[in-house]
Amino acid sequence: MTDPTAINSAVVAVGDELLFGMTVDGNGSWLSKKLTEMGAPVSARWVIGDDPTAIKRTVLTALGKSDLVIVCGGLGPTSDDRTRPAVADLFGLKLVIDQGLADKLHGRFSSAGHGTLPTNNLAQAEVPEGSIVVPNYEGTAPGLIIEEGKKSVVLLPGVPHEMRLMFDSTVTDYINQRFQLYLNPILHRTFNTSGIPESLLAEKIGEHVADFPSDVSLAFLPGLQGVSVRLTTTVSSGEGIANLDFCENLIGPHLNPYCYSVGEKSLIEAVADRLLIDKKSFAVSESCTGGFISKLITDYPGSSRYFKGAIVAYDPATKSDILGIERSLIEKHGIVSETIASAMAEKTADIMNTDFAIGLTGVAGPEGGSLACPVGTVCYAVAGGGRVVSFRKRFMGDRTSIRERATQAALFSLFQILTKNTGLR
Amino acid sequence: MTDPTAINSAVVAVGDELLFGMTVDGNGSWLSKKLTEMGAPVSARWVIGDDPTAIKRTVLTALGKSDLVIVCGGLGPTSDDRTRPAVADLFGLKLVIDQGLADKLHGRFSSAGHGTLPTNNLAQAEVPEGSIVVPNYEGTAPGLIIEEGKKSVVLLPGVPHEMRLMFDSTVTDYINQRFQLYLNPILHRTFNTSGIPESLLAEKIGEHVADFPSDVSLAFLPGLQGVSVRLTTTVSSGEGIANLDFCENLIGPHLNPYCYSVGEKSLIEAVADRLLIDKKSFAVSESCTGGFISKLITDYPGSSRYFKGAIVAYDPATKSDILGIERSLIEKHGIVSETIASAMAEKTADIMNTDFAIGLTGVAGPEGGSLACPVGTVCYAVAGGGRVVSFRKRFMGDRTSIRERATQAALFSLFQILTKNTGLR
Repeated sequence: MTDPTAINSAVVAVGDELLFGMTVDGNGSWLSKKLTEMGAPVSARWVIGDDPTAIKRTVLTALGKSDLVIVCGGLGPTSDDRTRPAVADLFGLKLVIDQGLADKLHGRFSSAGHGTLPTNNLAQAEVPEGSIVVPNYEGTAPGLIIEEGKKSVVLLPGVPHEMRLMFDSTVTDYINQRFQLYLNPILHRTFNTSGIPESLLAEKIGEHVADFPSDVSLAFLPGLQGVSVRLTTTVSSGEGIANLDFCENLIGPHLNPYCYSVGEKSLIEAVADRLLIDKKSFAVSESCTGGFISKLITDYPGSSRYFKGAIVAYDPATKSDILGIERSLIEKHGIVSETIASAMAEKTADIMNTDFAIGLTGVAGPEGGSLACPVGTVCYAVAGGGRVVSFRKRFMGDRTSIRERATQAALFSLFQILTKNTGLR
Repeated sequence: MTDPTAINSAVVAVGDELLFGMTVDGNGSWLSKKLTEMGAPVSARWVIGDDPTAIKRTVLTALGKSDLVIVCGGLGPTSDDRTRPAVADLFGLKLVIDQGLADKLHGRFSSAGHGTLPTNNLAQAEVPEGSIVVPNYEGTAPGLIIEEGKKSVVLLPGVPHEMRLMFDSTVTDYINQRFQLYLNPILHRTFNTSGIPESLLAEKIGEHVADFPSDVSLAFLPGLQGVSVRLTTTVSSGEGIANLDFCENLIGPHLNPYCYSVGEKSLIEAVADRLLIDKKSFAVSESCTGGFISKLITDYPGSSRYFKGAIVAYDPATKSDILGIERSLIEKHGIVSETIASAMAEKTADIMNTDFAIGLTGVAGPEGGSLACPVGTVCYAVAGGGRVVSFRKRFMGDRTSIRERATQAALFSLFQILTKNTGLR
């Protein structure tokens, strides 16, 4: 991005429903990812309402900093769709009938059996004079491209599947041609970790950042699923790849014990891949996560190839009645104990007839905690391969965070056992 | 909003991961909704990178148009978190150690068993001189409020659950106090329905819209959880409430058979409330939803008072082995049948010793469908009160949508049985 000849882009999402917070701006993220990968990184995004003044002001501001501005939304036929006239007005362009669009409208109208197209419906065929039409194969509102000197403004509808198809089928080619010499694709490499906080990771790998080539930057992306560490280079050639390799060699050994995937793969997918490769099956008994582990696993199509089922032993009686864990064992060790988690894992592998099983018991809160076993305490165990490994952890946060962190921790233990801790690479 | 004394707000989301499109800006939508409801509507949102110059320029621009600017993201302990120093610099404020924050950081780190606090973590205790600290109960990065004349800039972390809790527990009160005279809340009344498509609902209640007072508008919000019907008025006094009452009297009778709650209450919460009032317990056996129903139920604290557990019979063998459903019955009727769903519900109520139970079996896809039982086919049953009621439905959409719709449909049937279809009001 320090290259003065490189272009950058901007995205403006238009729609009152976005500003009211009724709709999440998924288009903005989708376009950002596409534009970044193409080498036209997004320098800023805006979300504004269906207001002609705001549309004109924002497009003008965006054009001041960026060579390519994508405006998304407000192209429909109804009166609250203001983008087309506002942008035409900004550039002092008349709205004129596009004969191709008019013919298509006439055709669609009569083939639907509505007779002749009423004159006011023809407004949908009006385009700013001299603009390029982007065909919409899935809806009525066409996209439009307006060129101003060396810069371009692209108007697309806000309906996500229409917008995405139009971008992929037409706009991508347009951008590649028009900005050919200035595109600068960005390369990422993302290491997804579990079981270590961001600050400790930063401490472990921070010392190496000084040795990074100047084109490579490092980012930490923390979340309830763990911390992802991302290397980014703006050098898109083989040199960029070599530089990422160089940095990976520096930080890789520190990441390896905690890393379950490189790239987009989730922990669940990493576990699933390993179970499929090894042709192993697994099952779960969970109490405080209440079906969360099972739900996450079955989110993925084809999970029946390795996942046999789950017992949500939410009531202590279920642990003894269905799993067959002796009540005396529960009384002796307490329901939240490594002993009970281990028994749950073993009994589950037995009942469900699987190679591996997870057992998990804990206190997700906000109630039910005690001095000996405060809210956030979770015991989990993995049975399989002739042994049982158990853990006792205390997770921070609210009920949702505790449940998500416990789920992730138990699955990461299964992953470690499946991979025998040998790391990814 | 035409009131010149009314305030408006702006939201700035900071993070390279947002501009790269790797993360969707869910914080922006969430804050937009909250601020709109509070009466501080959002006039524009920005998404920018972890770049001090961009942060300073954008906050300055936002302050030019808005009285309240919320900046979200870039407050963490690592070197790519630039918001705090950038905003401090913009206002010419020194960064000083806040002793309360420093003490909390030390305590938190050692009690989590990570040893001594790394030096780079202490930076999180630095605040712009004179700023107000917003406590973060779930993470280490505190929020900050900087007042500039009659305007306020609020800095919050980008981690969604931390940000939300901080906004709800502290920032809301702050905004209500500081902008008390200028807030212009919007009144909503939302009727949440299940089991009826948007078009049919629109047909049933459309004729009444002409009789609505002019300040009340109607919106249909379809989603995987069902269709919500929302009445909105910009008159926030008693007159607005009376107008909403008037409209509810018109459309209420049509909504009642499908409505499980008015307001924010989810279907799960509506079911839970009823079970608690009636002192009844329940359990679930689910196959294609794979733990989804159980997970949703146990998302709520205190669910152990009415929920005993679940069996995720993801493998057909589990249905016979654990639930004790005869294999001959499965062979005769097919695994996806009302007979098997009913058997699952009855056996589950029996095994788990509950008053009610749901049994659910189906094909979530994308694979596993057949001519007789295409992808999306789901059979579910509710056992309890001496009878079993079963259903066979075909849900549209992808795997996620089918699983969510099936979950919702089964829970709505339980709700109808618990309320004996008498409606809400």
